[in-house]
Amino acid sequence: MNVRQYKTVKERREAVEKTLGISLSSIGTPYTSEEVASKRNCENMIGVTTVPIGVAGPLKIKDQRSKIKEYFVPLSTTEGALAASISRGCKAITESGGAIVGSHRIGATRGPVFRVKNLTESEHFYRYLKDHLSDFQKVASKTSHHIKLEKLLTRGVGKYRYVRFVFDTKDAMGMNMVTIATQALTEYIEKETRVVCLALAGNFDIDKKPAWLNFIENRGTKVWAEVTVSSSVLEGVLKTTAQKVYDVWLAKCMVGSAISGSMGFNAQYANVAAAIFLATGQDLGHVGEASMGITTCEIEKDQKSNIKDQKNGDGLYISVCLPDLMVGTVGGGTGLATQKEALSIMGLAGGSPAGEDGKNGVRLAEIIGGVVLAGEISLLASLSIGSLAGAHRSLARGEKI
Amino acid sequence: MNVRQYKTVKERREAVEKTLGISLSSIGTPYTSEEVASKRNCENMIGVTTVPIGVAGPLKIKDQRSKIKEYFVPLSTTEGALAASISRGCKAITESGGAIVGSHRIGATRGPVFRVKNLTESEHFYRYLKDHLSDFQKVASKTSHHIKLEKLLTRGVGKYRYVRFVFDTKDAMGMNMVTIATQALTEYIEKETRVVCLALAGNFDIDKKPAWLNFIENRGTKVWAEVTVSSSVLEGVLKTTAQKVYDVWLAKCMVGSAISGSMGFNAQYANVAAAIFLATGQDLGHVGEASMGITTCEIEKDQKSNIKDQKNGDGLYISVCLPDLMVGTVGGGTGLATQKEALSIMGLAGGSPAGEDGKNGVRLAEIIGGVVLAGEISLLASLSIGSLAGAHRSLARGEKI
Amino acid sequence: MNVRQYKTVKERREAVEKTLGISLSSIGTPYTSEEVASKRNCENMIGVTTVPIGVAGPLKIKDQRSKIKEYFVPLSTTEGALAASISRGCKAITESGGAIVGSHRIGATRGPVFRVKNLTESEHFYRYLKDHLSDFQKVASKTSHHIKLEKLLTRGVGKYRYVRFVFDTKDAMGMNMVTIATQALTEYIEKETRVVCLALAGNFDIDKKPAWLNFIENRGTKVWAEVTVSSSVLEGVLKTTAQKVYDVWLAKCMVGSAISGSMGFNAQYANVAAAIFLATGQDLGHVGEASMGITTCEIEKDQKSNIKDQKNGDGLYISVCLPDLMVGTVGGGTGLATQKEALSIMGLAGGSPAGEDGKNGVRLAEIIGGVVLAGEISLLASLSIGSLAGAHRSLARGEKI
Amino acid sequence: MNVRQYKTVKERREAVEKTLGISLSSIGTPYTSEEVASKRNCENMIGVTTVPIGVAGPLKIKDQRSKIKEYFVPLSTTEGALAASISRGCKAITESGGAIVGSHRIGATRGPVFRVKNLTESEHFYRYLKDHLSDFQKVASKTSHHIKLEKLLTRGVGKYRYVRFVFDTKDAMGMNMVTIATQALTEYIEKETRVVCLALAGNFDIDKKPAWLNFIENRGTKVWAEVTVSSSVLEGVLKTTAQKVYDVWLAKCMVGSAISGSMGFNAQYANVAAAIFLATGQDLGHVGEASMGITTCEIEKDQKSNIKDQKNGDGLYISVCLPDLMVGTVGGGTGLATQKEALSIMGLAGGSPAGEDGKNGVRLAEIIGGVVLAGEISLLASLSIGSLAGAHRSLARGEKI
Repeated sequence: MNVRQYKTVKERREAVEKTLGISLSSIGTPYTSEEVASKRNCENMIGVTTVPIGVAGPLKIKDQRSKIKEYFVPLSTTEGALAASISRGCKAITESGGAIVGSHRIGATRGPVFRVKNLTESEHFYRYLKDHLSDFQKVASKTSHHIKLEKLLTRGVGKYRYVRFVFDTKDAMGMNMVTIATQALTEYIEKETRVVCLALAGNFDIDKKPAWLNFIENRGTKVWAEVTVSSSVLEGVLKTTAQKVYDVWLAKCMVGSAISGSMGFNAQYANVAAAIFLATGQDLGHVGEASMGITTCEIEKDQKSNIKDQKNGDGLYISVCLPDLMVGTVGGGTGLATQKEALSIMGLAGGSPAGEDGKNGVRLAEIIGGVVLAGEISLLASLSIGSLAGAHRSLARGEKI
Repeated sequence: MNVRQYKTVKERREAVEKTLGISLSSIGTPYTSEEVASKRNCENMIGVTTVPIGVAGPLKIKDQRSKIKEYFVPLSTTEGALAASISRGCKAITESGGAIVGSHRIGATRGPVFRVKNLTESEHFYRYLKDHLSDFQKVASKTSHHIKLEKLLTRGVGKYRYVRFVFDTKDAMGMNMVTIATQALTEYIEKETRVVCLALAGNFDIDKKPAWLNFIENRGTKVWAEVTVSSSVLEGVLKTTAQKVYDVWLAKCMVGSAISGSMGFNAQYANVAAAIFLATGQDLGHVGEASMGITTCEIEKDQKSNIKDQKNGDGLYISVCLPDLMVGTVGGGTGLATQKEALSIMGLAGGSPAGEDGKNGVRLAEIIGGVVLAGEISLLASLSIGSLAGAHRSLARGEKI
Repeated sequence: MNVRQYKTVKERREAVEKTLGISLSSIGTPYTSEEVASKRNCENMIGVTTVPIGVAGPLKIKDQRSKIKEYFVPLSTTEGALAASISRGCKAITESGGAIVGSHRIGATRGPVFRVKNLTESEHFYRYLKDHLSDFQKVASKTSHHIKLEKLLTRGVGKYRYVRFVFDTKDAMGMNMVTIATQALTEYIEKETRVVCLALAGNFDIDKKPAWLNFIENRGTKVWAEVTVSSSVLEGVLKTTAQKVYDVWLAKCMVGSAISGSMGFNAQYANVAAAIFLATGQDLGHVGEASMGITTCEIEKDQKSNIKDQKNGDGLYISVCLPDLMVGTVGGGTGLATQKEALSIMGLAGGSPAGEDGKNGVRLAEIIGGVVLAGEISLLASLSIGSLAGAHRSLARGEKI
Repeated sequence: MNVRQYKTVKERREAVEKTLGISLSSIGTPYTSEEVASKRNCENMIGVTTVPIGVAGPLKIKDQRSKIKEYFVPLSTTEGALAASISRGCKAITESGGAIVGSHRIGATRGPVFRVKNLTESEHFYRYLKDHLSDFQKVASKTSHHIKLEKLLTRGVGKYRYVRFVFDTKDAMGMNMVTIATQALTEYIEKETRVVCLALAGNFDIDKKPAWLNFIENRGTKVWAEVTVSSSVLEGVLKTTAQKVYDVWLAKCMVGSAISGSMGFNAQYANVAAAIFLATGQDLGHVGEASMGITTCEIEKDQKSNIKDQKNGDGLYISVCLPDLMVGTVGGGTGLATQKEALSIMGLAGGSPAGEDGKNGVRLAEIIGGVVLAGEISLLASLSIGSLAGAHRSLARGEKI
């Protein structure tokens, strides 16, 4: 069987069924944009994978411009207890007055590697690169209206010179766009300098690998979120205390991560990122990058809540910092039917309104920051009172938790 | 709207539609096992996310027992060009005589952190842990027929003692199982020693974070795959030469990864892992762990192919090594309708035949190794002749590539 | 000038003086064992470098066998304020009742890399290595009475197979010894298996590079030390409080190290290690390995001291953990005149008494652990009250601090 | 015995001798600048440590300004075979026409951590820091004529904001200077913003710990060196071939370092750095930073040498890249008698000529780059022909090698 010979998804699926003697009736679920998806998203398409999608929320978020809003968040996962855990964290945040979120738009990167003759040429090439950013910006801009070259970083090792181009790609995650722009840039540079580009992507990007370069230089959108969970919420919603959560955080996210040589000083960024990424059509290859980052905790003594009738006691300040979140609201899988609907749950389907290009993409990143914070709160709280295994035991028995 | 108050998926979805004034008709696609999924896989379920699924192959694989078999591989992705790229790599492997794969079953890990009074108690506790493995094995085995405690690793820092329990979980990825077993273990140890467990999961597991501990000690299944791509395939299928691919590999996967502080010395393990993980119901939070590993290349001089009518020339030996692949064929999302069908494409749906418990899980891991190898071949070849951006440009225009 | 042509240190020095037209009168300071040193320690020797040596202490230490002893510690450095800072830390420890130290003797490692034909041979070779440890132990033991092969770790990547041999080298740091033993081992293995050794040292040792493998698997001697600094010492000796030191520790050694991608979660292990290493004739190439490790702090509420007339208040528990300390009391530079005297200050010059081989080496490592703890206490305390720059300002004016 | 009560080095030494009943006659070797050293370099001084010093060379070096010069290099070590190994590498370089060296002066760093109230204040503080570099430059310049603040990098995590100030410190390594300047800066910033500085050094410097931040952002002086070792030198001096050295390099420095989680992709930077650091009065705590970096190798086909009567054959291009070399020719231990003489062997004792401030410091760094290159060549060549253990065996027998 040559899967490439079939013209339609249906023919191809039926060929697979016949060849292997199996049924693919569920994968064959009618899919609204099969024709587009088979051209733009997945070659050799035979149907669809369906994954349960749930919602968490409401999650109250305040951004740096002091706008407060409540969101429901789509989560697509097959791991029982995850959606429930995140929901509990959202409740804790919202009942504590909401999370503050903030972000810096860093940009998508592409990192070609050039080949120089020796260190002397490497140094000359270094100076050329440093001196011609504005030329490069013009070249890049010609490849798309939605792209802007922001800056470049370059490092030389032996006869290699690596360049990390950093682009603003507005509402798009943008790897497709920056690949095309970087191709134009390398062709331009080769013509101008006679220095040969060895590879368009030389792992100085560094795309889809866990790497300190992205942690330190940041990539995509850098996101923070913080909240002080009130003592009453700690007691009522999370069944724990600030001290207990703090103790687990220090032992797990700090010392435990340190002895494990981890790039993630956190509890479960990856779980939350994966669930939102899948629901909203993000590139799942970027889950590893999203799993990097640092959670911090502090006990806030005798914290007084703004919420009335709340007992005083120790509150828990908790923050997350994700240095490398590669997400967007246009392009890739974001335009597929269910994914677009999932984005619409947060009011972020498609591009930003005219004149605000990039706003939706940043907003999505900030909301993810808030949800990641919810995930940290819930799991650390659960660990602090020894209730993690209980949830898994219930699942193993098929009980609803 | 309190999403928890609704009893059925349909009611919940309609509430979201009404509350937000949007339509979720695609997400509402009838889903065959909605009731089960909403209990076991995703709380607050409102429907399904659908993602295109394609197939790559045939991919010829020889395992350590010299069995040769051809596989079609299910890939679920929204990133255009990925499935086509992997398919091309599969073709290159198969036409070169097939990939050799091998694996070591390491096991799923859970890493609780205990709290000791001082270094002296830490040392006593260390000796207790070292001396009572067989007792722990009995305790663990009582929690499930499918689990076996294989070994433990322990490290002490200040008043913390971390333990990394390593379990064989047969065909299951097993994090659910090992969480329950570890809970039993910590309760037993607390009773025996009066040393308190601070958290069931202290990041010495280390689960779903990029970490050198997993790279060095390995986790889940460790997988290798290798092939020597013949010169005729390099020319005919990949339009490149062994030297060109080698040069890109060295600049990108070795030196480029080194200067970036990467745990991935490879081209695109994450892309391939994410696509198979999604198609087969794996936990997407483990994509980051699967992105670690090392690809190696060598030029094989004047390599003679076994395939007749092939020109002699330099062949390219290429291998992949994934130290930490957390996958299974039972449990988690593997039992959902489309995911089970996807596993059936490889003949691996559900548990192994009686008496061969674990065989399916290992087989899945080894096939993934082969597909990851295909992904490396295709991307490195593409980079070596500057054709990467071309594929992306076609996608941007909606052309089929 | 050909420096190799001269027979004596004096002739060689005079040739350098004459050729370059400079005076080397200080370097020419009479050196008691010039002849031996020029043969065993430094080729092309022209004289000596002299570095100031000071003493810190007394430092009270309790080991795991509950023996309490006070030590003076030799420190050789050119960095003003370091010896004073360490001395202050020793005082804080001693006045708080002494440090508890502990250690595990891991062993020196050598990591050859072998070359296999393919994954199948790699797997066979893996099984051979696993099955023949006792044979290897016999081979290793023949190379020296002072060496014992303890275990091996092996990893395969493509056509490479790496082996990490771990040896007990008793009182010696032992790299010289293990190199010779590993040569014998690789020759034996090559003869037995026809697998070729590509390099005797394939960076799987991994010697003198900062590496997670050594952090995680440990190397040389692993050392811990801890003390609870009493509130009166915090106030009287260190002019600070437990809370202030704790806050600096968390911000610096934990979060600060995390965002910097560090293998050192500490304040200044390297400074202390370098000063003792130089004074006692250790290999200074190992300073980087000694700089890895984790310092932990905890506030001990209302801590009551055993020392009479002491005010109650918060004490500070502080611990250090050095996973990779490569030191010895015989071999290398430890037999040189001033170095041997420096070791004698701690009662550790030369090998251990008969029947207790290795005791001196471990004791030295444990004392270093205690001194490293002193260094952490002093620097963290200094930073917590903003007095670090003051010390440096005094130095800049040539004042005694 | 209270070591602090004695006024002179001699009195203190005699007190130690008497208290412990040992002789310190070698440590008491007359030291020319005892009074200065005991005030500026080492508190509680009791004498000197003496370490053998040898010379390697001549080493021919060409810098980026095409100046060619031959150097003898001082090496102080107690590890037999090291000086001989480096000498052999120098010979290989010089006979191949000399090494090309290059460098970028990055600067010494100090990284205070500030304490903000929340993310909103963190963001405001971030903007303040970004906008006031020129003010900070004025503040820093007032603390010394030899210092210039070049730039700053800042990162926020939770309630912490870290700042990495990067200073040009001319001929000095400069940590003393930058500590004083940073104290002035933090005082200024606290006064201007009311944001409190938690610690002057928050490990974002990151000083004397192995860390990716320094690898990626660079620190001190970044140095490169390269040479193509001719085929006749490979055969005549090194007894090997380009292919053999290349094979060892790839297996050891690339793949071997990758599987070990190393920050050093090299053979022995630390050994060479330690020997020159000790000889020239550098801070030995920086050896770990100097051990980071990447060595690259390439086979140069049918390389024709400029040296007459040389056989054609494959040459070996080899380069080193040290991202973080903290060295200087003034300050610290560089002014001590033997250290100053050692610097004079390279013509670099003391500060640069008027108007060329910083030249000596950079020159020292570049020479170290060349010597590190020599060390790589020699060790990789030795490993490639299996002669490493032989040298160590000779040493063990006390033979001259």
